[in-house]
Amino acid sequence: MFKFTYNETTTDRARLGRIETPHGIVETPAFIFCATKAAMKSVTSEQMREANTQIILSNTYHLMLQPGADAVAYHGGLQKFTGWRGPMLTDSGGFQIFSLGHGSIANEIKGRQQSGRPKTLLRITEEGARFKSYIDGRTWMLTPEESINIQYKLGADMIVVLDECTPFHVEKSYTKDSMEMSHRWAKRCITKFDELNESKKQRLYGIIQGGVYEDLRAEACDFVNTHDFFGHAIGGSLGASKEQMYDVVNFTASKLDRARPIHLLGIGGIKDIFNGVRAGIDTFDCVHPTRLARHGGALVKPGSVEGHHKEHVTLSNQRFRLDNEPIEPDCGCSTCKNYSRGYLHHVLRANEMIAHTLISIHNIYFMNKLLSDIRESLADGTLDKTQERWVH
Amino acid sequence: MFKFTYNETTTDRARLGRIETPHGIVETPAFIFCATKAAMKSVTSEQMREANTQIILSNTYHLMLQPGADAVAYHGGLQKFTGWRGPMLTDSGGFQIFSLGHGSIANEIKGRQQSGRPKTLLRITEEGARFKSYIDGRTWMLTPEESINIQYKLGADMIVVLDECTPFHVEKSYTKDSMEMSHRWAKRCITKFDELNESKKQRLYGIIQGGVYEDLRAEACDFVNTHDFFGHAIGGSLGASKEQMYDVVNFTASKLDRARPIHLLGIGGIKDIFNGVRAGIDTFDCVHPTRLARHGGALVKPGSVEGHHKEHVTLSNQRFRLDNEPIEPDCGCSTCKNYSRGYLHHVLRANEMIAHTLISIHNIYFMNKLLSDIRESLADGTLDKTQERWVH
Repeated sequence: MFKFTYNETTTDRARLGRIETPHGIVETPAFIFCATKAAMKSVTSEQMREANTQIILSNTYHLMLQPGADAVAYHGGLQKFTGWRGPMLTDSGGFQIFSLGHGSIANEIKGRQQSGRPKTLLRITEEGARFKSYIDGRTWMLTPEESINIQYKLGADMIVVLDECTPFHVEKSYTKDSMEMSHRWAKRCITKFDELNESKKQRLYGIIQGGVYEDLRAEACDFVNTHDFFGHAIGGSLGASKEQMYDVVNFTASKLDRARPIHLLGIGGIKDIFNGVRAGIDTFDCVHPTRLARHGGALVKPGSVEGHHKEHVTLSNQRFRLDNEPIEPDCGCSTCKNYSRGYLHHVLRANEMIAHTLISIHNIYFMNKLLSDIRESLADGTLDKTQERWVH
Repeated sequence: MFKFTYNETTTDRARLGRIETPHGIVETPAFIFCATKAAMKSVTSEQMREANTQIILSNTYHLMLQPGADAVAYHGGLQKFTGWRGPMLTDSGGFQIFSLGHGSIANEIKGRQQSGRPKTLLRITEEGARFKSYIDGRTWMLTPEESINIQYKLGADMIVVLDECTPFHVEKSYTKDSMEMSHRWAKRCITKFDELNESKKQRLYGIIQGGVYEDLRAEACDFVNTHDFFGHAIGGSLGASKEQMYDVVNFTASKLDRARPIHLLGIGGIKDIFNGVRAGIDTFDCVHPTRLARHGGALVKPGSVEGHHKEHVTLSNQRFRLDNEPIEPDCGCSTCKNYSRGYLHHVLRANEMIAHTLISIHNIYFMNKLLSDIRESLADGTLDKTQERWVH
């Protein structure tokens, strides 16, 4: 039911692949959209399909707290529950626990400032992570075994081992110790996964930690390559700058077994995706396209909006009030086919929820088109040209 | 481009009609959905069409303030602006001015308690109504001529004369004086409309006021019947109880020229619609189906939810957590085909916007199915049976 195949291309380490799952095929390179709480923010599963989406992910952390893994299992698993029915991935729950726990690890990992969120992580031990629910304050213990158990009940096609997400601003020794514990956790995950996954309906991804340190990343790559994973996900801190991120991604991807699909966690910038593809990354995920839409931001290619030189336009801006062009004149999404920038400006200003839906649909279609253009250009060796058309 | 035709039925004064407009045909009896600010709350124009919607309305009051009639005109009018493209109606702006002005006229008209909203209506004179914008506090003057001018720019197929919406708790003499002023306003509207509508792209509805007083309602019917309107809308206070409302609607509809379509303003209860249809009403409008959805309420027929005897169920209720039935097992809407009550319960509890979208889609489809069942049963003389299936 599961299979990963790929063809080499003439462009660096970039490749064209296929991940076969019981719920369908993912042509790679591909973008995975975040349906955090088993729901895309303001977009239906039908609208996701119409926007050419191949695969979505949900977050174990949120779903274990609400509605609970047993409730999702009762409803037949995530694909049935959400009406999505296509390929899905769940993460391990670790990222959010450590993110909320350390302040904001998303910011940490990307080298940004700390946020003021309440710290809910109580304790990390060899056993697992103890944390407080953001919903009702109840104390939970997430062990590697429990993460796999929950992800088994949630029922996504691809699931991920529990790891500790080490912040950026820690010493190398902390990163090393943390990585080593993550490897011990990974082994416990494999044991639990083998015990549960008799029906072979799921596949397990290992995670590569090691921060910005090449020797640690190499060690982590060696660990995942030599253990029984279907695929690998590059996690942890990728540094404080784009340059450092590209270095870490390029180095890490080069050390990974090419027989297995490689996922890059939490990266969704357009230029970053081109870099990742060249480094051999097969799948990407990020909340950016839909989060941006909720703030009125629409993704645009160079030249789509006159005099505009950024990856997105903010449609609530007064300049769009009397603009009767679609977001992008050459876009085939249902928003661009039916609505003008002026209308989107109006519904944003009027606080109409439909604004988020319509702009999200564009951003989702945009990302899917980006990745399909990348796949096409990899096939005919024109990635440089495609990159020029997409990167500002 | 415009035409109203109908066939008598064997059921009381009920009739089967067709309103032809430049944007398509409305088979009547029909329900008109409220896209208040030129947007359905959380539902796209495509989803409206997929839910079998024939016609929507927008509110002049909201649109004159934001984005402004000229902006909508610049974008080619409401149908082009909203991407809806089907038949549309706008109201005159009066209802909201007087509603916000008198406290809440919606409550007043329906005999409910006053709300605590700020009063923004500054003054009603023979000239028109002076009020403050709820957006920026600016003072506006809405005259009959200006209402028509704005509605002309908005460009809906059917537009409505400006009237004063008299509250319920006023003396008969106030209601009479007010009605008489509304008739003088109506004449000014006709004059302005004739001046603007050279292209014949719009048609004008007159409004019947007169409160709960038969002699005043009869006078108002006589007024609209003898003036140049395409259709008639029953407005104003319909009393404090269902019984009184039915009496007022039945009496008023019986006095109206049957050559013109009859609209009943602001009524959307299922039983009320059956009563209206029997009284000869052709179209209804109400925010109820979508407002209800935003509070997690899904419309259901008798027998759809075990042990439930009301017109709607509140899906956030704990009893639906592990319910894997669709809202209504026999419903053909995309929500019922793809999502369970348990999933809708989850997304409501998780505060996911998609909850409002999915439940709205059901409620809209539900209302359209109700009206199409009514039309079918009028054709074969089985309205009583249909009413039994739909009314709790």
